Amino acid sequence: MAYSARAIDIAARVEDFVRTVIIPYEKDGRRTAHGPTEELALEMKAKARAAGLMTPHILPDGSHLHHSEVALVLRKSGLSPLGPLALNTAAPDEGNMYLIGKVGSAEQKARFLAPMIAGEARSAFFMTEPAADGGAGSDPSMLKTRAVLDGNHWVINGRKAFITGADGAKVGIVMANSGSDEKMAATMFLVDLPDPAIRIERVLDTIDSSMPGGHAIIAIDNLRVPADQILGEVHKGFDYAQVRLSPARLTHCMRWLGACTRAQEIATEYACRRHAFGKPLIDHEGVGFPLAENMIELKQCELIIDWCAGVLDSGDLGTTESSMAKVAVSEALFRIADRCVQVMGGTGVTQDTIVEQVFREIRAFRIYDGPTEVHKWSLAKKIKRGHEAV
Amino acid sequence: MAYSARAIDIAARVEDFVRTVIIPYEKDGRRTAHGPTEELALEMKAKARAAGLMTPHILPDGSHLHHSEVALVLRKSGLSPLGPLALNTAAPDEGNMYLIGKVGSAEQKARFLAPMIAGEARSAFFMTEPAADGGAGSDPSMLKTRAVLDGNHWVINGRKAFITGADGAKVGIVMANSGSDEKMAATMFLVDLPDPAIRIERVLDTIDSSMPGGHAIIAIDNLRVPADQILGEVHKGFDYAQVRLSPARLTHCMRWLGACTRAQEIATEYACRRHAFGKPLIDHEGVGFPLAENMIELKQCELIIDWCAGVLDSGDLGTTESSMAKVAVSEALFRIADRCVQVMGGTGVTQDTIVEQVFREIRAFRIYDGPTEVHKWSLAKKIKRGHEAV
Amino acid sequence: MAYSARAIDIAARVEDFVRTVIIPYEKDGRRTAHGPTEELALEMKAKARAAGLMTPHILPDGSHLHHSEVALVLRKSGLSPLGPLALNTAAPDEGNMYLIGKVGSAEQKARFLAPMIAGEARSAFFMTEPAADGGAGSDPSMLKTRAVLDGNHWVINGRKAFITGADGAKVGIVMANSGSDEKMAATMFLVDLPDPAIRIERVLDTIDSSMPGGHAIIAIDNLRVPADQILGEVHKGFDYAQVRLSPARLTHCMRWLGACTRAQEIATEYACRRHAFGKPLIDHEGVGFPLAENMIELKQCELIIDWCAGVLDSGDLGTTESSMAKVAVSEALFRIADRCVQVMGGTGVTQDTIVEQVFREIRAFRIYDGPTEVHKWSLAKKIKRGHEAV
Amino acid sequence: MAYSARAIDIAARVEDFVRTVIIPYEKDGRRTAHGPTEELALEMKAKARAAGLMTPHILPDGSHLHHSEVALVLRKSGLSPLGPLALNTAAPDEGNMYLIGKVGSAEQKARFLAPMIAGEARSAFFMTEPAADGGAGSDPSMLKTRAVLDGNHWVINGRKAFITGADGAKVGIVMANSGSDEKMAATMFLVDLPDPAIRIERVLDTIDSSMPGGHAIIAIDNLRVPADQILGEVHKGFDYAQVRLSPARLTHCMRWLGACTRAQEIATEYACRRHAFGKPLIDHEGVGFPLAENMIELKQCELIIDWCAGVLDSGDLGTTESSMAKVAVSEALFRIADRCVQVMGGTGVTQDTIVEQVFREIRAFRIYDGPTEVHKWSLAKKIKRGHEAV
Repeated sequence: MAYSARAIDIAARVEDFVRTVIIPYEKDGRRTAHGPTEELALEMKAKARAAGLMTPHILPDGSHLHHSEVALVLRKSGLSPLGPLALNTAAPDEGNMYLIGKVGSAEQKARFLAPMIAGEARSAFFMTEPAADGGAGSDPSMLKTRAVLDGNHWVINGRKAFITGADGAKVGIVMANSGSDEKMAATMFLVDLPDPAIRIERVLDTIDSSMPGGHAIIAIDNLRVPADQILGEVHKGFDYAQVRLSPARLTHCMRWLGACTRAQEIATEYACRRHAFGKPLIDHEGVGFPLAENMIELKQCELIIDWCAGVLDSGDLGTTESSMAKVAVSEALFRIADRCVQVMGGTGVTQDTIVEQVFREIRAFRIYDGPTEVHKWSLAKKIKRGHEAV
Repeated sequence: MAYSARAIDIAARVEDFVRTVIIPYEKDGRRTAHGPTEELALEMKAKARAAGLMTPHILPDGSHLHHSEVALVLRKSGLSPLGPLALNTAAPDEGNMYLIGKVGSAEQKARFLAPMIAGEARSAFFMTEPAADGGAGSDPSMLKTRAVLDGNHWVINGRKAFITGADGAKVGIVMANSGSDEKMAATMFLVDLPDPAIRIERVLDTIDSSMPGGHAIIAIDNLRVPADQILGEVHKGFDYAQVRLSPARLTHCMRWLGACTRAQEIATEYACRRHAFGKPLIDHEGVGFPLAENMIELKQCELIIDWCAGVLDSGDLGTTESSMAKVAVSEALFRIADRCVQVMGGTGVTQDTIVEQVFREIRAFRIYDGPTEVHKWSLAKKIKRGHEAV
Repeated sequence: MAYSARAIDIAARVEDFVRTVIIPYEKDGRRTAHGPTEELALEMKAKARAAGLMTPHILPDGSHLHHSEVALVLRKSGLSPLGPLALNTAAPDEGNMYLIGKVGSAEQKARFLAPMIAGEARSAFFMTEPAADGGAGSDPSMLKTRAVLDGNHWVINGRKAFITGADGAKVGIVMANSGSDEKMAATMFLVDLPDPAIRIERVLDTIDSSMPGGHAIIAIDNLRVPADQILGEVHKGFDYAQVRLSPARLTHCMRWLGACTRAQEIATEYACRRHAFGKPLIDHEGVGFPLAENMIELKQCELIIDWCAGVLDSGDLGTTESSMAKVAVSEALFRIADRCVQVMGGTGVTQDTIVEQVFREIRAFRIYDGPTEVHKWSLAKKIKRGHEAV
Repeated sequence: MAYSARAIDIAARVEDFVRTVIIPYEKDGRRTAHGPTEELALEMKAKARAAGLMTPHILPDGSHLHHSEVALVLRKSGLSPLGPLALNTAAPDEGNMYLIGKVGSAEQKARFLAPMIAGEARSAFFMTEPAADGGAGSDPSMLKTRAVLDGNHWVINGRKAFITGADGAKVGIVMANSGSDEKMAATMFLVDLPDPAIRIERVLDTIDSSMPGGHAIIAIDNLRVPADQILGEVHKGFDYAQVRLSPARLTHCMRWLGACTRAQEIATEYACRRHAFGKPLIDHEGVGFPLAENMIELKQCELIIDWCAGVLDSGDLGTTESSMAKVAVSEALFRIADRCVQVMGGTGVTQDTIVEQVFREIRAFRIYDGPTEVHKWSLAKKIKRGHEAV
């Protein structure tokens, strides 16, 4: 994979920024179970802006780096769990910016997208629904939130679950069934947040802790949205979900690959420095082998991400490829993070380094954006169809 | 394994108590990253005492259940992460009580052990040292804390790390080198806590969160201990560490087996109730298979614990067997907890159930009491010796 | 698990016989891809008979050792892949003897069972059908072979697949649908072999090579069987299949546990003797750790076999428990055999030791008697039923 | 990875040839445990020659495809285990041709290389030595075979092990210590075979069965080689071993990736055609998921091979990268082949398809060219050095 010169340049500056400016914040006390405090976030973002690195994957002219370029840049932004937030490359904002950039009108971009790119507005994507209600978890065909046309407005009612970053977001994209009970159609709506009709029932306590705003359960009660706030066209929500899907999956992979690259650095440093049973830890095969396995698997993650990014750059939706990449990367990164924890022994399970956090984040990643099993299920269907087509 | 009638009886009462009285506390807000608040702990202990179930594995006459009986009882106490604390079967108290019961003098038992059995005093075991100092992590031959005789007292200096429950403990067992730099000998000392000479430098933030007092870094500065507070005999600390070692390893296995048994119940209930893609989750092989794997591995954990307990009951130190059991059980329980998380999808990574916590606790367990790799290293040495002896 | 004195005695004599008499035959040229030649088999059997060890798990009075006793004895018989054949503890004879012993009439026992116990007649169990025909592979409800009453005889037609030992067998048990197409019922028939109506279409070339007669595809064309050769009662074939099922699964586990115990001995000896990079192989953690993992998993196989045997001895059919044991043991033994191969490097993949063969046999074992996946499927159904029953 | 047009063209013709001409030979009886008979080999080679596809990765002008191009072509040649032999892309000839092409003199190329490229001469690479002698297994520093200068000849004595294809080879490359006991130096010698001084002690029976000539134990007794048959320069044998090393490792990966791609096709076809429990096997997640895992891992194998080939094409020796690729690919292909076997149930362990053979070959591949553990050991050393260099 030959990266473009501009990608290499941006990535180098991002890496330098993360290593010198952001990593020291990892010891900052202003961190909560739901990410950095607003104060800390603003402080880091100000530094990114000053360094000319706010939203580095979207160029000043509004154009977006190619996916293969994004792969390099976002990986570097992920070298600290704080990096994506500071640099505005984090989920769900990155995916939301991508989607609005693709299908939003000029007016929508000016009103909703511009402040997001500027790092001034966080956003949330209201798609997943509570399985407890029989709503859409991993299965979008179960969408229960309804949007009903009332004059020039749509009135939306429903409940949403695991809405990342909803608490504190200024922009929302709400997915609802704009068809009927019998014949579902989905539409996406752009909304200003907060809105009293979108009530945060509670923010979940979860194993991960990097996402500002955490993951919320949301009730939508008679939310009225003007028709011109439909994102793209009416009834095309499922299509747009597909547009957002693969890139968003893949940027998750990129960021967490960066985090695990860093975890490997930390574990390696530890294993080279600490001694047990008469020699440096790394000279024990029981320590050196897992680090070698990590070296191999980190490379494999990079390769499958770059491959999938290339497919997206070719104009393909990449649904199959991003499923493959998501499963491969999330499962590999989990093994990698787990080995880093284990190599570091007692220190590995403390918050003295970020390795412990990375392990927890990656555990969640095996479920976010579709659990591994859902992707395998979908891939198996494709294998069957591929065979039948022979 | 035919359990004794008394073990079956005690275990049944423990299970009923945990299920009806303790599990409701899992939703109680009085919980911290370092276990329940003191208030909550006292409240639960009071109920255990009222139920006649405080320290259920030690009988009113001071005798201790056989290890095979303990296996059944402690498993049930572990059905909630709160159970061992409420019932006084938790680490490190359980192991400390066992050790003092085995080698303490009558006076020491009256002074130190009795309040522990009564659930009125928590304790800590000061053995592990900071690897950063080059001290004894998993390698006891690196013991750096020194005890020097000064008249009728011993004066102890050194640092300790990962001292579970030190914060809030009333009884301490301190391991120190009572020999010389050239010829190490280890002695254990019983001390009242808190003591200004035993300073908590900091309590570590760790991935687990069930242990009151957490895990602390400790500095011991000129701690003076009268000679009659030597636990057992002088210079026999390593022997006593062996006495405590296997049973303490094994009770960890028992408690966490209980916790994973419960996690499996929760995941099963979830998988039977929730639907996706047109049928209950459990009817998907991608969900049913991991639950089946858990069913098998839970049984295997039970079997190897019972086997090792039988070895201990035969009078053997069981060092090899408890290494085998510790590796097998901690690694299997991790797979089990991981599968429970995955089966539950998004809910699995939230604290809406205890499954998320159990997963984190078990991750730490693969390192506590000797990382898996240290045990394999030790077992490989034994295989070699066994071969040479043929 | 306290084994009985008689089991310990028989097992000790079996072990001594296998180690001193049978293992030397492992270098004997008279071996084929389908087990030892008839000449070699007879020679080994003669020695077992002379040692008073023919069919050691069935006592001279015709009574059968308890399953827990069988566990010990058959494990020892399996220390060589040639052992079970020499000692007449091999599949499918062991399971067939067990079944006829349980449900055969006195006449049937005298005529069919006695020569089998004497090691003079091999047998085959005609149950599995070709999946290619849409017949019963792992799914007995697909039984296609039909038995139709014609006067005092039953006329049987159908095809069977993977019929182990059919080539060379003298006794056959044939399972057929004695009901109708609409309402299936299964009956087992005892037949003398060879019979021109039971034609061996071909003997499969398979990855395993220990079974005399290999695994055959069979055509049954108008086989006429007198009604008094029905094994047990008419229409009870499925019940009897259940009677045979769990013990036969479990004796497979026992024998292959013996084989893997031996593979571990061979690999250990190799790892202690050979040097690389300046020290004995076993002193490399990359070699010592897998041997330690084997040590643990061999013990776990023993424990779950003994547990399941205890369930069978209690009178339970043990269908669930033997599924659990079969999955756990076959998968663990595969990992064990694989590690032995790997530890031995180039030598591991040669037939210079039996390790290579054991690896191949165990690979097949993960499929024989129900692939792992079929057992997990069945266990998941039981978990669901268990949950619904709460 | 954008493949070149010529690579795509050659690969397409190779694939078509293998699928239409070679695959039918998989049912040919003229196959032995050590590959096809000479007759069958000649027949297949004649067809490859007629199709203009003999040695397709070396162009008529003697130039060699780039490694990235070879990756595509050799993968296709491996779609049948018979393909590499028919097309002359098999080990060890492929690596030997590469090496002679790189370092041989014009005379040596005319005499030794030309008939190899023409598919008229097989070759063997005499490097590995018997571990039993304390010789060089995976550790080349243990080279014991000696070459002593005697006038204008070198006299070589020693023993070699696992010499693939020695039986039947016409060209040999013999590695020997041309230095002294104290100061080792290695030289490679080109020799005509057979030669009475190079005696095949025995051909090993191994788990794999695709290599003509199998793997032999060799005694070299006073082999006299004229000085002009030194390959390249004297004392540079270790350097040349490095030249051959990475490409040879990588072409193994390519060929076996082809074989596993085919195994996946066979397993998929089986899973789509056969039914169990009321639906096609592939609709069972227990079957569909492993096929999906294979789909992902096959892609990952392709990606890491292509990446490593790119490194080689850049002029780098690629020692680290080819270690990484070899471990990743051999271990992944083993899992893939194992899943194919399992998906096919009883049929998977028979030789009715090539899946069983592929499984066996890949098992050996995890050991050939350096066991996984040796590569991890070497990678861990590089990680340490990399860290120290920071």
